[in-house]
Amino acid sequence: MRPFADRLTEAAARRSPAVVGIDPHLALLPAAHRERVALGRAQAGEAVRDWCRIVLDAVDDLVPAIKPQVAFFEQLGAPGWAALEDVCAEARRRGLLVIADAKRGDIGSTAEAYAMALLDDSGPIGADALTASPWLGRDSLAPLVKTCDTQGKGLFVLVRTSNPGGGELQAGDGAARVAGWVREWNATRRGESGYGPVGAVVGATVPDEARELRAVLAGAIVLVPGYGAQGGSARDAAACFDPGRRGAVVNSARGVTFPAEGDRAAYDADPASVIRRQALAFVRDLAVNIP
Amino acid sequence: MRPFADRLTEAAARRSPAVVGIDPHLALLPAAHRERVALGRAQAGEAVRDWCRIVLDAVDDLVPAIKPQVAFFEQLGAPGWAALEDVCAEARRRGLLVIADAKRGDIGSTAEAYAMALLDDSGPIGADALTASPWLGRDSLAPLVKTCDTQGKGLFVLVRTSNPGGGELQAGDGAARVAGWVREWNATRRGESGYGPVGAVVGATVPDEARELRAVLAGAIVLVPGYGAQGGSARDAAACFDPGRRGAVVNSARGVTFPAEGDRAAYDADPASVIRRQALAFVRDLAVNIP
Repeated sequence: MRPFADRLTEAAARRSPAVVGIDPHLALLPAAHRERVALGRAQAGEAVRDWCRIVLDAVDDLVPAIKPQVAFFEQLGAPGWAALEDVCAEARRRGLLVIADAKRGDIGSTAEAYAMALLDDSGPIGADALTASPWLGRDSLAPLVKTCDTQGKGLFVLVRTSNPGGGELQAGDGAARVAGWVREWNATRRGESGYGPVGAVVGATVPDEARELRAVLAGAIVLVPGYGAQGGSARDAAACFDPGRRGAVVNSARGVTFPAEGDRAAYDADPASVIRRQALAFVRDLAVNIP
Repeated sequence: MRPFADRLTEAAARRSPAVVGIDPHLALLPAAHRERVALGRAQAGEAVRDWCRIVLDAVDDLVPAIKPQVAFFEQLGAPGWAALEDVCAEARRRGLLVIADAKRGDIGSTAEAYAMALLDDSGPIGADALTASPWLGRDSLAPLVKTCDTQGKGLFVLVRTSNPGGGELQAGDGAARVAGWVREWNATRRGESGYGPVGAVVGATVPDEARELRAVLAGAIVLVPGYGAQGGSARDAAACFDPGRRGAVVNSARGVTFPAEGDRAAYDADPASVIRRQALAFVRDLAVNIP
């Protein structure tokens, strides 16, 4: 498989640096789906799967990638994992890249098991890229980097997250050190696009830190959360980009896939139309405000 | 439900501070189980479930708790999650405490979804306690602490892990800061046992740091990995205990549940006997070497 960073860079240039986050909050699903959720975990898994298909139908010609949030599937147990398998396989069939947002981080053979669970083509999900936590050190990420090397996959390491407490361990030394690791991993791994397989998560809510980190993260694609619902604007996210709208992608989940206040009735009646309208607005916002 | 820390402290005093880690490395299973693994993920899930039952049969009267490593189940997708559900439910039926080793860490509503996935009694697993990563800050752990408060559950926050790179972000300031959070959370939450719901993971491979952290972690139960296969001895693990063999539990996975070199044939023929012998040796080692 061609390297993930080259595939993502090309697809983002062709379409948009917009990534649609798929976070099936059960309480926010369309009314008909919520009714099925109430029947038990097996039915809830099927309802989530069907809702994910609606999202794919609405965005699959607009964006380069989707980012399913694994937690929301996992809360349904085995039926949730079956729904996750379905949406990932279906997205890849439609030519979308899949970034599994799982924030895993563990050691040795356990890290290898997570690589198999989420990233490896012979595992159940086989995502194109995975988010990962660096708290356990470089050796904990090495098995994931290895899967990137052998199968053309990608990683997004949590460098500086968008939440209020994100800075407690990350701000300053922590984020700088992890950004240095990311830079080193990519140094010998850059592809045609100029980017390597090890990306970084840097929140749109901390644009000043993001500008500094972007400079350290040469050769790394930045995945930017915190747009929209969390308060980050497209202009804030711009701090994570290299010139020419390259080197970063911006995620929006709730703002695309669930209705704004006042749109609940329209969403319950026709979720696909609301999702498509919001996805178009997201793509347009990035086109206008990322230089 | 009575608070987790009180339940664990009582059970450890009655039996042993020994926790059996359940890490189904597919390549290490008994020969008959490996044959079934080769048939596909559905059969592999059933083989893992059956192997877990053998482990439970061999240890359920010896130890207070098991610690399933979620990654090894997750690598099988939905059938793996079904096996995880089975072993957790069966362990709890037999009066064992279940510590789900998932090292999750995410923000806001995603952290709530992980709490539902692994800890909440109305979710698929309903473990008694969960391991969690602090890299995203205190607000990322708050939803998990809330589930501890409302349902008598426990948390083990990764303070200082046992792997070679564990110190890169943790040693010094990082671990000290997280240990301070743990202490604060427990300050207003200590139960009859003197311990609160928020425990800490501190590796047996770093006994000098462990002694310092133990002092900061007043009121926290320490979960000690790194015993056995990773090179930590029972005497090393002793640094994590309070006087009277209290305030810590020691995990052993591979050293109990898989055969030592030379025992493979015996294990393939009768895994239960090998596991029981190794579990007894583990419990005895802690009884002799933890003061």
